[in-house]
Amino acid sequence: MSTPNQALALAALNHQSNLTKPQGSLGKLEELAVWFAARSNSAIPGRLQPAIVVFAADHGVVAEGVSAFPKEVTGQMVANFVGGGAAINVLAREVGASLSVVDVGVASSYSTVVTSGAQLFRVPVRAGTGNLRVEPAMSEPECHKAWSIGVGSAQEGFIRGKTLLIGGEMGIANTTAAAALICALTGIEPEEIVGLGTGISATSREHKVQVVKDALVRARAAGAVSAKDWLMHVGGLEIAALAGFYTGAAEAGIPILLDGFITTAAALVAVKNQPRVADWLLASHVSDEKGHRHALAALQLEPLLALGLRLGEGSGAALTIPLIQSALALHREMATFSSAGIATKE
Amino acid sequence: MSTPNQALALAALNHQSNLTKPQGSLGKLEELAVWFAARSNSAIPGRLQPAIVVFAADHGVVAEGVSAFPKEVTGQMVANFVGGGAAINVLAREVGASLSVVDVGVASSYSTVVTSGAQLFRVPVRAGTGNLRVEPAMSEPECHKAWSIGVGSAQEGFIRGKTLLIGGEMGIANTTAAAALICALTGIEPEEIVGLGTGISATSREHKVQVVKDALVRARAAGAVSAKDWLMHVGGLEIAALAGFYTGAAEAGIPILLDGFITTAAALVAVKNQPRVADWLLASHVSDEKGHRHALAALQLEPLLALGLRLGEGSGAALTIPLIQSALALHREMATFSSAGIATKE
Repeated sequence: MSTPNQALALAALNHQSNLTKPQGSLGKLEELAVWFAARSNSAIPGRLQPAIVVFAADHGVVAEGVSAFPKEVTGQMVANFVGGGAAINVLAREVGASLSVVDVGVASSYSTVVTSGAQLFRVPVRAGTGNLRVEPAMSEPECHKAWSIGVGSAQEGFIRGKTLLIGGEMGIANTTAAAALICALTGIEPEEIVGLGTGISATSREHKVQVVKDALVRARAAGAVSAKDWLMHVGGLEIAALAGFYTGAAEAGIPILLDGFITTAAALVAVKNQPRVADWLLASHVSDEKGHRHALAALQLEPLLALGLRLGEGSGAALTIPLIQSALALHREMATFSSAGIATKE
Repeated sequence: MSTPNQALALAALNHQSNLTKPQGSLGKLEELAVWFAARSNSAIPGRLQPAIVVFAADHGVVAEGVSAFPKEVTGQMVANFVGGGAAINVLAREVGASLSVVDVGVASSYSTVVTSGAQLFRVPVRAGTGNLRVEPAMSEPECHKAWSIGVGSAQEGFIRGKTLLIGGEMGIANTTAAAALICALTGIEPEEIVGLGTGISATSREHKVQVVKDALVRARAAGAVSAKDWLMHVGGLEIAALAGFYTGAAEAGIPILLDGFITTAAALVAVKNQPRVADWLLASHVSDEKGHRHALAALQLEPLLALGLRLGEGSGAALTIPLIQSALALHREMATFSSAGIATKE
């Protein structure tokens, strides 16, 4: 694991106090500049080079009727990413981030006719997970394989000089898996964590709560203890890949910008597995999905935005990039009191 | 006054429901797209052309010791804007907004040696206001003149094809004037509204509360009733210009993005003077200055961000531009369910 450089953080804090503004008046933007300084090679970091990697896979638990959308949508949305028409395509263009999609287990076939959008990597581990209510979502080797693909994606980001990594996800029914993981790893009851996902009814949500409860009972009986046990039992292939992605980013020393409910569940797995991953995590937003704030709290993360988003794909994180770039630009480019000949506080 | 087009809002809402995402999953971004559609010529508005205009002036009440910085800083910061080293310069570059500064009453002399930043217009109405604790801040003709300069600045934005107007401000001691105005126009007690400004002590704040109380008593005794009366008695030249700027923007039908405490006080004056200005106001952020949330509530505005900012200059509004551009880009560029061949909700 890489370690943030506290000397650089201190130097950045000192630099902030010389800039032509009342001290502290840029609030969280000042904290961001200091946070990134500790995670770069300089007290005054350059412009971030962000990469967004969307991991996609299907979920056997869709058979339980836990999602508002049919399972074919996972593959159809992968085609949409490749075609350039999804929200994350628009945002990646808008904020200057690279975008790739990694199919780690989409079950249905899909064709990518138009290819003006994200670069696609097809490395399916299996055709969607098992139904986590009644069986392990995946085997240990499958879980390991998906995790490794995530680590490799982070390493690819490192090699390409990326200095901010964003994981996104697409997987119909994956809020069920994420909720189960968050419950397992925080001890919070399903009633508090299970939400409406893409838009199910209150009645369907009650059923989803029961599905998660059953999954937790089953996995516990099967001896699930560690974060990776739980990942294998009630997780998802894209969630395993995300946990690996975050672990790989922390190993390489690249800051991670979390997105919503699913990615935060994956970060929780990564941190429970290896606590120092937490040093590299930044929360972009708190989503409308019921359990997200609990998952962020478990990671002791404070989100920058609260805009009622609940889309996934990495969209909330992408949206936050310009805010972070602005914080770093202010840190780099503002005049100091002495250089501008301005009187300081009386 | 221009009127938002509700037919375009409805068409925009309908368009949103066809985009490849669960309905409502983009939260406030969807509301933003609909809001701007009603205030443009199209259900699918183009990229915004934002202009930031910073109004600068001095305040006689600085003699009461209500500010952490000496009064010379107003002029020095105007020079910093022109030199390109202030926070708002960095942000304007970062988010692609034009930037100009209008001196409507800076008291001290300042020299603009380096001129790589904002365009400067020097049209001082008088050399700072009178001390609002003991006398009217300005005369009625002076107030009218400053207001007209603001209207003219909005008209200039219209002529130049600007489609989003941001007012910023610089004026040492102007949180005292803004607090007095907010108290006068909302009826809320100074204790709830007066804050720490650029960073005074708690003791100084108590004194500042008393200064505001005295000003309110004096102006009321002198017969202040209307919003413009109060503006003349306890306002500021840059605040009058901002109120005119917002009124001019509403007349021209250009959306306004509010910044912090001072600009919200100016918006309150504009709306009390002419209620339909409210149709064109959007709040960017809620600042750390104590009374800001009350002022926003009085205008029934919900801020998009809460980042602990308290700098002014238009900085919080500038920071929010990319978020709005992203909301509009998503609205324009996302695929529809039918165009992307994606199944809809079951």
